[in-house]
Amino acid sequence: MALATLPFLASASTSVGAPIRGRHRARDLGIEIGRMRPGPLNAITDVPGVEVGHGTIIEGHGKLEIGKGPIRTGVTAIWPHRGIVEEFFCCGVDAPNGNGELSGMLTARRLGVLNSPICLTNTSSVGMVYDALLKLQPDDDLPSGTPVVGETWDGYLNDVTGRHVLDHDVAAALQNARSGPVAEGSVGGGTGMICYDYKGGVGTASRLIEVNGSRYAVGALVQANHGSRELLRVDGVPVGAVLANRTELRKTVEQKSTLMIIATDAPFLPHQLQRLARRATHGLAKTGSISDNASGDFTLAFSTGNRIPRRSFFRGSGYHLRSIDQFNIQSFLEAVSETVEEAIINALFMAEDMTGVDGYFVPAIPLNETLDVMRAHDRLRGADSE
Amino acid sequence: MALATLPFLASASTSVGAPIRGRHRARDLGIEIGRMRPGPLNAITDVPGVEVGHGTIIEGHGKLEIGKGPIRTGVTAIWPHRGIVEEFFCCGVDAPNGNGELSGMLTARRLGVLNSPICLTNTSSVGMVYDALLKLQPDDDLPSGTPVVGETWDGYLNDVTGRHVLDHDVAAALQNARSGPVAEGSVGGGTGMICYDYKGGVGTASRLIEVNGSRYAVGALVQANHGSRELLRVDGVPVGAVLANRTELRKTVEQKSTLMIIATDAPFLPHQLQRLARRATHGLAKTGSISDNASGDFTLAFSTGNRIPRRSFFRGSGYHLRSIDQFNIQSFLEAVSETVEEAIINALFMAEDMTGVDGYFVPAIPLNETLDVMRAHDRLRGADSE
Amino acid sequence: MALATLPFLASASTSVGAPIRGRHRARDLGIEIGRMRPGPLNAITDVPGVEVGHGTIIEGHGKLEIGKGPIRTGVTAIWPHRGIVEEFFCCGVDAPNGNGELSGMLTARRLGVLNSPICLTNTSSVGMVYDALLKLQPDDDLPSGTPVVGETWDGYLNDVTGRHVLDHDVAAALQNARSGPVAEGSVGGGTGMICYDYKGGVGTASRLIEVNGSRYAVGALVQANHGSRELLRVDGVPVGAVLANRTELRKTVEQKSTLMIIATDAPFLPHQLQRLARRATHGLAKTGSISDNASGDFTLAFSTGNRIPRRSFFRGSGYHLRSIDQFNIQSFLEAVSETVEEAIINALFMAEDMTGVDGYFVPAIPLNETLDVMRAHDRLRGADSE
Amino acid sequence: MALATLPFLASASTSVGAPIRGRHRARDLGIEIGRMRPGPLNAITDVPGVEVGHGTIIEGHGKLEIGKGPIRTGVTAIWPHRGIVEEFFCCGVDAPNGNGELSGMLTARRLGVLNSPICLTNTSSVGMVYDALLKLQPDDDLPSGTPVVGETWDGYLNDVTGRHVLDHDVAAALQNARSGPVAEGSVGGGTGMICYDYKGGVGTASRLIEVNGSRYAVGALVQANHGSRELLRVDGVPVGAVLANRTELRKTVEQKSTLMIIATDAPFLPHQLQRLARRATHGLAKTGSISDNASGDFTLAFSTGNRIPRRSFFRGSGYHLRSIDQFNIQSFLEAVSETVEEAIINALFMAEDMTGVDGYFVPAIPLNETLDVMRAHDRLRGADSE
Repeated sequence: MALATLPFLASASTSVGAPIRGRHRARDLGIEIGRMRPGPLNAITDVPGVEVGHGTIIEGHGKLEIGKGPIRTGVTAIWPHRGIVEEFFCCGVDAPNGNGELSGMLTARRLGVLNSPICLTNTSSVGMVYDALLKLQPDDDLPSGTPVVGETWDGYLNDVTGRHVLDHDVAAALQNARSGPVAEGSVGGGTGMICYDYKGGVGTASRLIEVNGSRYAVGALVQANHGSRELLRVDGVPVGAVLANRTELRKTVEQKSTLMIIATDAPFLPHQLQRLARRATHGLAKTGSISDNASGDFTLAFSTGNRIPRRSFFRGSGYHLRSIDQFNIQSFLEAVSETVEEAIINALFMAEDMTGVDGYFVPAIPLNETLDVMRAHDRLRGADSE
Repeated sequence: MALATLPFLASASTSVGAPIRGRHRARDLGIEIGRMRPGPLNAITDVPGVEVGHGTIIEGHGKLEIGKGPIRTGVTAIWPHRGIVEEFFCCGVDAPNGNGELSGMLTARRLGVLNSPICLTNTSSVGMVYDALLKLQPDDDLPSGTPVVGETWDGYLNDVTGRHVLDHDVAAALQNARSGPVAEGSVGGGTGMICYDYKGGVGTASRLIEVNGSRYAVGALVQANHGSRELLRVDGVPVGAVLANRTELRKTVEQKSTLMIIATDAPFLPHQLQRLARRATHGLAKTGSISDNASGDFTLAFSTGNRIPRRSFFRGSGYHLRSIDQFNIQSFLEAVSETVEEAIINALFMAEDMTGVDGYFVPAIPLNETLDVMRAHDRLRGADSE
Repeated sequence: MALATLPFLASASTSVGAPIRGRHRARDLGIEIGRMRPGPLNAITDVPGVEVGHGTIIEGHGKLEIGKGPIRTGVTAIWPHRGIVEEFFCCGVDAPNGNGELSGMLTARRLGVLNSPICLTNTSSVGMVYDALLKLQPDDDLPSGTPVVGETWDGYLNDVTGRHVLDHDVAAALQNARSGPVAEGSVGGGTGMICYDYKGGVGTASRLIEVNGSRYAVGALVQANHGSRELLRVDGVPVGAVLANRTELRKTVEQKSTLMIIATDAPFLPHQLQRLARRATHGLAKTGSISDNASGDFTLAFSTGNRIPRRSFFRGSGYHLRSIDQFNIQSFLEAVSETVEEAIINALFMAEDMTGVDGYFVPAIPLNETLDVMRAHDRLRGADSE
Repeated sequence: MALATLPFLASASTSVGAPIRGRHRARDLGIEIGRMRPGPLNAITDVPGVEVGHGTIIEGHGKLEIGKGPIRTGVTAIWPHRGIVEEFFCCGVDAPNGNGELSGMLTARRLGVLNSPICLTNTSSVGMVYDALLKLQPDDDLPSGTPVVGETWDGYLNDVTGRHVLDHDVAAALQNARSGPVAEGSVGGGTGMICYDYKGGVGTASRLIEVNGSRYAVGALVQANHGSRELLRVDGVPVGAVLANRTELRKTVEQKSTLMIIATDAPFLPHQLQRLARRATHGLAKTGSISDNASGDFTLAFSTGNRIPRRSFFRGSGYHLRSIDQFNIQSFLEAVSETVEEAIINALFMAEDMTGVDGYFVPAIPLNETLDVMRAHDRLRGADSE
């Protein structure tokens, strides 16, 4: 059967059957999620000013000793821009499910501004990281900002109860943050995470949008820790169901959540960013998720397109904000869905096998088998249909 | 005891004991709620462009015949400005309690704009009024707006089941709407309403605010239909408790709700207007209300300070919105509370005795006795302290 | 490559290439969405007591004359059970997007109960249908319920401005409602709807769940009116993208929304039903949707597992409610996602070509071509993989 | 004028003009807020099982040295019952305003349960206290709970940046918690708080309600840190306006918030507790508050009337919950308003003068002058009307 209209058949980038080595991002393997064009880095850092840094802590092996290890955890720091505590961005939040924590959500929802870097870490380290972020806030006569700390649970591989993310780890992640390519997989806050019963972690993606002659980027960064293997879909293909019974985890993990951070340089107002944040669920769902019952899924979306100096925000003659028109919001909603979907797949594809607490092993998703399934379903760009 | 610091003792406007006749607004009787200055009309129409019209239907007496009467109802139409279906305003909503209906709430919350006049009517007439408002929407290639219709229940006095508000009543209220003084008490949607077991209805008030050299108005209009008499407070004085046992209604009314519309010409964004809307509850509470269990209380707040042409909103090169700074929002929050509190008291003070369905009688609050109580509590401007 | 683990390859129900005639439900054609087992009817009526009735109005041809036609509209009535105004069910709501109306949402959210049948209709008929439903409410000393009316816009095919759904149409749909199989496609409220630029309308599906020895059903009914063709996914396969350029609509429709009603007989509390309602988005997203910018998507979920007599609800010695445990909620979340996904595909598959206002034509999705695409992607149960 | 109907005139408990010494609760001075009957302790601990403990840290004087002091802070721990991490209670939350943090809000909102003790502290100590509470959670195969930590800002008097609430302070407050009378004023989390520009802190109150032959209690505990003096109302009397200009603070405090915890032993469902939580605003407003612009006001309401064992909640054959009927919820809404109003006044009345950072002084509200004003307004039970 001829599928000439499928745009992803236009050119070939992988040869059929040639086994690949190592870990690769989905798009580099011929999996093109959605119909929009990625940015040059295909990362949240395609939004100018956004910087990402990871603090990764991997120490020890063998039996769990609370407070000692094994440690498989970390913290990922996102600067909306370096000066966020002095110049605010509009933002919006959403929580598809809620057995978890994203501090600062209320401030985001009511005041509509982001005035802190964002940190993603493990469940037990929220307090410590919150504390570390609070120290960045200016100490003057204006109200201080609320730290934004999200968490997912890494206790299957990590001594989560041992609280191994310390003040200096947060400081280092903030300090080392860079624009440019973003490390993915088992790094930073994603170090010990599990996604669709494969090794999960950090993933990112981006899309470019032209509106009225201006070019904007939308980027997503996820800390992916959700899902049951059988539900995993890669670009619509039921990869999880096909591969489901090959390797099983030794016990079921229930507290599976995903944190989704959305950035764009298009000018949006807070209530519009709530709408964008909502669409992260659509991308999440397309990877097969149903937002697990025991999860604490959270989305935070911010726009760098309107900068509000802290002092003007609090006191002064007011400020102006720009918004694009309703009609053009549509592309951004689609971009949020696409980038979250691809970021989750990237997290899976870039993560590597990991052994942690009590010798528990979590396999990375096997890329060659995955590509075989994609090819059998005619969903691999550049692959001959069989 | 000398209370020299009380500003309301500065001058006298009513002489003690001289009985007043007729119905008067609270401030005209020396009751000054709050510390902010009212606008020239002390009405929602102090916000430039806002127009209010009433359709009042009072017909028949005696025994209820569903579909015939007696009729004690109506509709109140508020134009945020006459061209609202073509040029939108930002808005926000809140619902302290929810056994009722305010159509269009979702559009207000998600899209952040008001694109319809607002109508307040009785519970059974929501459908008909919704239908009438929909006809105002442009019929072109752009999405149409959602009618905003609020309701409270007037079935104690009115043949509510009979649906007596017809299409032409809505059209007339919209047509007759005017800037200038607003009729209060038992008019329009407030015709058959009951508040603190006294005759209730429509009330309004306003405040003026100076911000960075600009003068803005905040206005409230309420359709007051809530409360138990014993809880009524007039400017903090427990007037309801003192007068409680004088005249009782023949049966308890449970579906007691209040609709609160807030307008301002200061520039606000949608998420900020949600915050303003929230403060209507503070004014409501200060009159003694606890937002009755079976009520459907709703607040809608809009700002005329940012106009968004319909076509620019939907398609085009985007638009700019202005916002005042955070610090100065404080005065607006206070103004919302003050105007709602005073508007409710005005609704009570301006309403007159009414007999309706099955000869049920609802007394207006007795103004002379009320003033006696206020005077005894040293809460009457211009009264000698006893 | 052997895909022996794919359960849908176990048996054959369609022969490859044999063209089918007429319209068929997805599952009858070998498309099995999800991994859970449908109920005997694969319809919302698998939940005992739920009844569905359609009023379909198709009249006239040719040029639009507002108030005359052509008419392509209707109303779908859902009885959670026939006695819903006297015996309430717990319910929850969600609104993925909000440029539209679902009346009664606030009551559902705050009071947590459904006390009205549910009607789905076109945008302009909300008022009239609301009015018709209100008449069902008991007229006694207890608070009356709030009608639940949802709408989507059918103005591409229908003289929507002409308001052709009348009181007797609503009465007839309510009267004719039945348990048993549910008519799908261009019927009732779905008559004039468009979905992924194909003819849309009403669809339904169900799943069975065993919990602690009890068997429960989850059913979804959708009025599907959303989406851009290129985004359509059928069980993950990009059918829309493949078929996109074959037939295009003459003009773009923007007000595309979908109403999703979820029913279950498992006992749930109101806040849990809010969580179930949220998962309808996951099913919607899996068909390709991003919840269009100008849409008014709404979900209402109710449980028949706890019945609260009206009088006990309002006055009395209180009542007891049952809930299943957290762990077992997971299957229900998945069932909501699966049934909504399949119901939307059923709406597409069962709808037929339609010509309406001004001769505008909307094609039904071509089933043979669709099956070809599914087969090429190895996603057809019973089909040989090519 | 005779005000014989005012119940508070029935008997005398204070003699006019006799100056009182020390700090006293409002009711002991003849100020009776509302019309409902308090419990024996007039405290949140009238709800059986509820225990409250304070950790108060007051050290140093003079100039601020960050990290050293002066310290005027602490933590208040509330056990809904001692076994809350193993046996959950239903709960609901509300946030009148949101520039602050109440961790665990999302879990409370979505899952509807409280599974952690509640701690109230200063803004900078949220992280540390969160960390301390997390350690109480069971470490087994079931999901852990989310700590509930609320904060208000005490930086006017306290070296808030110095983070002086340590792990052992939290442990001690939890350990020392008791049923019985609750210490009020400048203790625990309330140590350094300011309310209406007077010294604020912790306050509590309770009410008793008979429903269908059962007697229930409603209790509130507040950490009061809000308001501008001129707005303060004591039982409706504008005490703040009368006393406003006597002593002013050296600088304006903007981050003024109040945390309100509501407890009842009546059986309520989560969505009903959301409704109860909402009514805390009514009580807050009656003390004059408008929920300041820069505040982070939060309410959490829980019911001890339904106990859900942790294991049954997560896995098992489900559970039953009881609810009182709608009609009787009304009294609980009123009780929430009354107890919050009185708890705030108690916080003011029980707090004492305090000098803190840089020698800044915050006076306690002068009780004798306050009583003079109350008397002049005829609002003192037992006082002769003048």
